[in-house]
Amino acid sequence: MTNTKSNNHPFLAACRREKTPYTPVWLMRQAGRYMKEYRELRARHGFLELCKNSDLAAEITVTPVERLGVDAAILFADILLLLEPLGVGLEYAKGDGPVIHQPVRSGKDVDGLKDFDPEKELSFVYDAVKKTCQALKNKVPLIGFAGAPFTLASYLIEGGGSRHYIHTKKLYYAAPQAWHRLMELLAALTAKYLNCQIAAGAQAVQIFDSWAGCLTPVDYEQFVLPHTRATIAGLTPGVPVIHFSTGTGGFLKLLRAAGGDVIGVDWRVHLDEAWERLGHDVAIQGNLDPGALLASPRDIRRRVEEILRRAGGRPGHIFNLGHGVLPETPVENVIAMVEAVHELSAR
Amino acid sequence: MTNTKSNNHPFLAACRREKTPYTPVWLMRQAGRYMKEYRELRARHGFLELCKNSDLAAEITVTPVERLGVDAAILFADILLLLEPLGVGLEYAKGDGPVIHQPVRSGKDVDGLKDFDPEKELSFVYDAVKKTCQALKNKVPLIGFAGAPFTLASYLIEGGGSRHYIHTKKLYYAAPQAWHRLMELLAALTAKYLNCQIAAGAQAVQIFDSWAGCLTPVDYEQFVLPHTRATIAGLTPGVPVIHFSTGTGGFLKLLRAAGGDVIGVDWRVHLDEAWERLGHDVAIQGNLDPGALLASPRDIRRRVEEILRRAGGRPGHIFNLGHGVLPETPVENVIAMVEAVHELSAR
Repeated sequence: MTNTKSNNHPFLAACRREKTPYTPVWLMRQAGRYMKEYRELRARHGFLELCKNSDLAAEITVTPVERLGVDAAILFADILLLLEPLGVGLEYAKGDGPVIHQPVRSGKDVDGLKDFDPEKELSFVYDAVKKTCQALKNKVPLIGFAGAPFTLASYLIEGGGSRHYIHTKKLYYAAPQAWHRLMELLAALTAKYLNCQIAAGAQAVQIFDSWAGCLTPVDYEQFVLPHTRATIAGLTPGVPVIHFSTGTGGFLKLLRAAGGDVIGVDWRVHLDEAWERLGHDVAIQGNLDPGALLASPRDIRRRVEEILRRAGGRPGHIFNLGHGVLPETPVENVIAMVEAVHELSAR
Repeated sequence: MTNTKSNNHPFLAACRREKTPYTPVWLMRQAGRYMKEYRELRARHGFLELCKNSDLAAEITVTPVERLGVDAAILFADILLLLEPLGVGLEYAKGDGPVIHQPVRSGKDVDGLKDFDPEKELSFVYDAVKKTCQALKNKVPLIGFAGAPFTLASYLIEGGGSRHYIHTKKLYYAAPQAWHRLMELLAALTAKYLNCQIAAGAQAVQIFDSWAGCLTPVDYEQFVLPHTRATIAGLTPGVPVIHFSTGTGGFLKLLRAAGGDVIGVDWRVHLDEAWERLGHDVAIQGNLDPGALLASPRDIRRRVEEILRRAGGRPGHIFNLGHGVLPETPVENVIAMVEAVHELSAR
């Protein structure tokens, strides 16, 4: 399912809430470990090495588009790439996920961060964007992405993955001024980083606030929302912005208030109820459980049908998972899912 | 703040949505690692040993009531105790949390579980209930508890803590009949176990569905709700039931539909919005972020005030955290929180 008119791709049209011949679909982490092609490359290269090799990054980005028949490509990269030039000792430790060896835990730590120009320091990302666009030949649009300031800040503060975000919460309770300084820095860097991706050819961008679900609505409103809003407000006008988070089904309105043309929702809420709460004057992305791709193709189809039924044929729905593809997912199931979305929504 | 009339304690009155002189408050895991008295006992005894020693379990249960001034005691025990007699090799491994050495992954595994009589096998729990009631002298009510069938099932299936609940989801997708057999068994055991706690003196019970937040509303409704409902329907009439879960802010109505006199909510949703969605003909428990207890007493007080403001003085609010106290919590902060709830709600 392709469309050669640059700005008229079903994915981009859906971002603008225009009618589309079918519901466009892509998957978070569609280029990832569940895919043999990717595992083979990873066996030979480190993760950071792949990110920094723009030829390989472009190859990894394009492969799932051809293999799965999805309606958008998402750049192969990582939200933490933006943190590396801050000088905090980012390392992709084997098996344990990313680690930050000098976590930020105080105002002094915040002030010690090395400011930098994302245009200069992350040129390999923009090279990958350019090469991907060349390879895609505008068959489908390319989505650029970045972490939202909160999710980036909590990585910096916790020093890696976290369960309770204790250091993060402690910092915004105990040192709100340092917190806001950090978030302002990250918002400015993120906006600039995304604008460079856009300048290099990305036709839409997604902001991942994957960890916002650890927050109360009160704390989100006070400590996070203004900075996500500033990030989004700083982006090149006219390029659709997808604002994604998980675990935030209880305060979707605040996510909406922070901005974005499309709000991404996880699977813990019915799509129609989420859309109702968000308001129908914004597009919505989601919301299949990544775990559902472990079911049989017949069961997957039934779940796709249920989500499409709840979307009700309303323009402005982009089908996706509620979070990234799980590494255990059979690629055949992903293909069955994409086919089911296209077929059932075209009826 | 105590009340000597047995059935007229503010906590029990709030469960029935009757007016109370102030908002009752207790904390999940109020007897836990954040408390010096508990850490001292744990240094000398294994976790299971403490659970099975009814004198020590009663002591641990009573200590925080005296120390914190809360309006209810919750039995010191663990939701996994009910799984041990099933013969799955439960072990509380040091540092790593509980492990189940023979996880349940198929219909055959389900059929191989050893059925048992919770009245006989878990008599140490009821002894602890009795001894606690004697020690409490009805100063505050005692809450008994158990895991909800889903949370128990996912422990059994995953074999411990989990991030994506892959085996659990695979089982209900691939073998729904085995899944329902397992859930029926757990529902029957749980109801009997709680009824024994009630017979021994527990004046209310809480059902923990701590992991239900990994589910879609569709899967919750199909695979979980009927079994939680059966559990609750099987309980001794007249005893208040608190139905607690986390991460379910997107489908609170389904939690409500499964039953319970009080619905426990986490901190990811405003209390007034959650109550509105649940309906005001049910009581509500919550919803302070456990992380908020790492803030200063002044900040804690402000957050208590905000929650009480959202409760609006409506009868039927029990103040609590949205999940268990974090081990890093200063006990002084917990005391400040309890005092703030009592003082601000009595105005």
